[in-house]
Amino acid sequence: MFEQINGGVCAAKGFKAAGVHCGVKAGSKPDKNDLALILSEKECAAAGTYTLNRVKAAPVYVTMEHLEDGVAWGVVANSGNANACCPMSHENAVAMAKAAAAVTGREQSDFVVCSTGVIGQTINIAAIEAGLPKVAEKLAAGEAASDAAARAIMTTDTAKKEVALQAKIGGKTVTMGGIAKGSGMIHPNMGTMLCFITTDCAITHEMLEDALRDVVTKTFNRVTVDGDTSTNDTCVVLANGMAGNELVEWKNEDYETFRSLLMELCTELARKIAADGEGASRLITCTVSGARNEETAERLAKAVVGSSLVKAAMFGADANWGRVICAMGYSKAPFRPEYVDIRFGSAAGDILVCEQGAAVAFDEEQAKKILTQSEIVIDINVNEGEGTAECWGCDLTYDYVKINGDYRT
Amino acid sequence: MFEQINGGVCAAKGFKAAGVHCGVKAGSKPDKNDLALILSEKECAAAGTYTLNRVKAAPVYVTMEHLEDGVAWGVVANSGNANACCPMSHENAVAMAKAAAAVTGREQSDFVVCSTGVIGQTINIAAIEAGLPKVAEKLAAGEAASDAAARAIMTTDTAKKEVALQAKIGGKTVTMGGIAKGSGMIHPNMGTMLCFITTDCAITHEMLEDALRDVVTKTFNRVTVDGDTSTNDTCVVLANGMAGNELVEWKNEDYETFRSLLMELCTELARKIAADGEGASRLITCTVSGARNEETAERLAKAVVGSSLVKAAMFGADANWGRVICAMGYSKAPFRPEYVDIRFGSAAGDILVCEQGAAVAFDEEQAKKILTQSEIVIDINVNEGEGTAECWGCDLTYDYVKINGDYRT
Repeated sequence: MFEQINGGVCAAKGFKAAGVHCGVKAGSKPDKNDLALILSEKECAAAGTYTLNRVKAAPVYVTMEHLEDGVAWGVVANSGNANACCPMSHENAVAMAKAAAAVTGREQSDFVVCSTGVIGQTINIAAIEAGLPKVAEKLAAGEAASDAAARAIMTTDTAKKEVALQAKIGGKTVTMGGIAKGSGMIHPNMGTMLCFITTDCAITHEMLEDALRDVVTKTFNRVTVDGDTSTNDTCVVLANGMAGNELVEWKNEDYETFRSLLMELCTELARKIAADGEGASRLITCTVSGARNEETAERLAKAVVGSSLVKAAMFGADANWGRVICAMGYSKAPFRPEYVDIRFGSAAGDILVCEQGAAVAFDEEQAKKILTQSEIVIDINVNEGEGTAECWGCDLTYDYVKINGDYRT
Repeated sequence: MFEQINGGVCAAKGFKAAGVHCGVKAGSKPDKNDLALILSEKECAAAGTYTLNRVKAAPVYVTMEHLEDGVAWGVVANSGNANACCPMSHENAVAMAKAAAAVTGREQSDFVVCSTGVIGQTINIAAIEAGLPKVAEKLAAGEAASDAAARAIMTTDTAKKEVALQAKIGGKTVTMGGIAKGSGMIHPNMGTMLCFITTDCAITHEMLEDALRDVVTKTFNRVTVDGDTSTNDTCVVLANGMAGNELVEWKNEDYETFRSLLMELCTELARKIAADGEGASRLITCTVSGARNEETAERLAKAVVGSSLVKAAMFGADANWGRVICAMGYSKAPFRPEYVDIRFGSAAGDILVCEQGAAVAFDEEQAKKILTQSEIVIDINVNEGEGTAECWGCDLTYDYVKINGDYRT
């Protein structure tokens, strides 16, 4: 566990951020930020992971192109529109990068570009172009408003997701901060929802890329809210080297510390995304142990947190473990039903509900008490090997239906 | 289209059926049937398809064993308990077949055994054993109550699913009838929810098996309610040959007629299952055409009807086609986003919402009118080839959450 500090994406040396309301979505409230800018004083090594959805939003392609050289200076992002599947989507994503470059005196290709919101409606690029000078002004005035940027990328999120951590790497204090948004259309696949991470660690693009790929697989890719992989998922890390540590350029001890730091930061953000899933009232963590290997454990855990029936049962604080073993069964992961033990746990204790694949008598009152907490753990041991994995999700509530039955209009 | 007649599983010559309340589930209403018996006068060629869930309920294993010889005489089925994952589940499934044999003068292995209901609670086998003489009495009295049997297998279903059709095969009138139950935990995989089909067609076990496998793949396996594949899915056809047609023993014209009859029957039942999905207010049909092949078309259509976000949008009568193309994108099926056309249709007309992968202007009022109907078609053309497929689902409503937040208790 690393030391948690304040400041989000502005915690690391040399990074500024700001967010404003520019009115991307017609009729949006003037106090809801919808445009964010993150900027480094120095060039950053940069790495990104992106949605594997075959339908990718235009900004995803633009960002992929801009990060081909492995460097970047900043991020420009909006909420209120996904800038996807419209005749001018690509041109508008490019225009957004151009506008960010113009107000910061940088190049268009120095920017990561991200959008989130409704698919298939033409983005109000004029609002973004008009808003960018205001954000740039705040940055020039020295604003380090990670909070305002984190709020600017929120859509149906009810809480901002912001974390910063510090570690010693090569004798120097290295800081890393991140902001993320989640909520709906969350089932990241090799990418994630929008997540921006900044660090002052000196690290090569190659090492950064390796660490990010490894960490995303074990954190954001283990979150599911509704099984829908977005067209816009993007996770980007910018490292400007201003901590002054010896450059991390191979997989030594410093690399391992950096990777652990990134893992802890992304785990925190992933949990925040799951806990704030659309309409969610509970964070559900499923831990699987005793699997043949980690992949099997992950597949089992993901099926459990992804099951609509398990999610609805958790909403109702119903210890319906039959739905848990049923979800494991259709996950396509190998395991022996007759070896499975299942426990439900929370701050109120834990209780064994299934042993060796069969029902055991348990106290329904105690189970209810455990399951009415806001964080539930479904703890499964398949008693076959050493593989373990932890996945995160949330319950399925009336509010999920409400939010998504009328999101666009 | 074949002629639709009354009588369900009793429409074909030589089949009787009955259903009673025996109290499988403690506290269940006395007017809710929970035990069904279907019996043929003559031995039947029999074929079944079963859930591919790794966790299979005990009656599934018992039925698989009983149908190994390709013949059967009847079906015994209960609702109120899945008879799955309990220490005595296997013994109880065997006891159920034994009890059915005892009251009908047949062998234990002559029976298909099925259960549906909650997983992980010991089944009240005494209630079933006490109920079977009552059902047998009704059969002996000549009862042909497909209706009572169809009601006995319902759980959260709000409507019984029963169809019967007639066709001429080899100059003789052949009748086929079926009953099914669906509602929750519906995402059949090579099997289906409980579905029992009877026919007086003379057909070999081999031909019956081939026809069933082919038809189930294109009907029940194209339905999804919640993505959860049950532990108990079973679809069985019994053919007693009493129509007197020349035995169908190879893939001639008669076989094709039989296969078409089975296809129409199963399509009807599959649509009924989708329309009565837990909490559903609308039946959603997704038709994909122009795909590279049928498999690609099916994968695309299934992803669309399976998407929580599409389902919630349909509940809200929101023409949010971005979620449709997003679901196609993560389906892992190959297609070119820039070729995709999407239309929404219903009894109130149809409307183009996406052309060549991009937004087109459309009348929101008209779209709303179309989407507030009880049957919606999402019509997708990927303009690449000849592959087509049709899949069925339903909308995601508050009632789904309500039903499943408190199902067990």
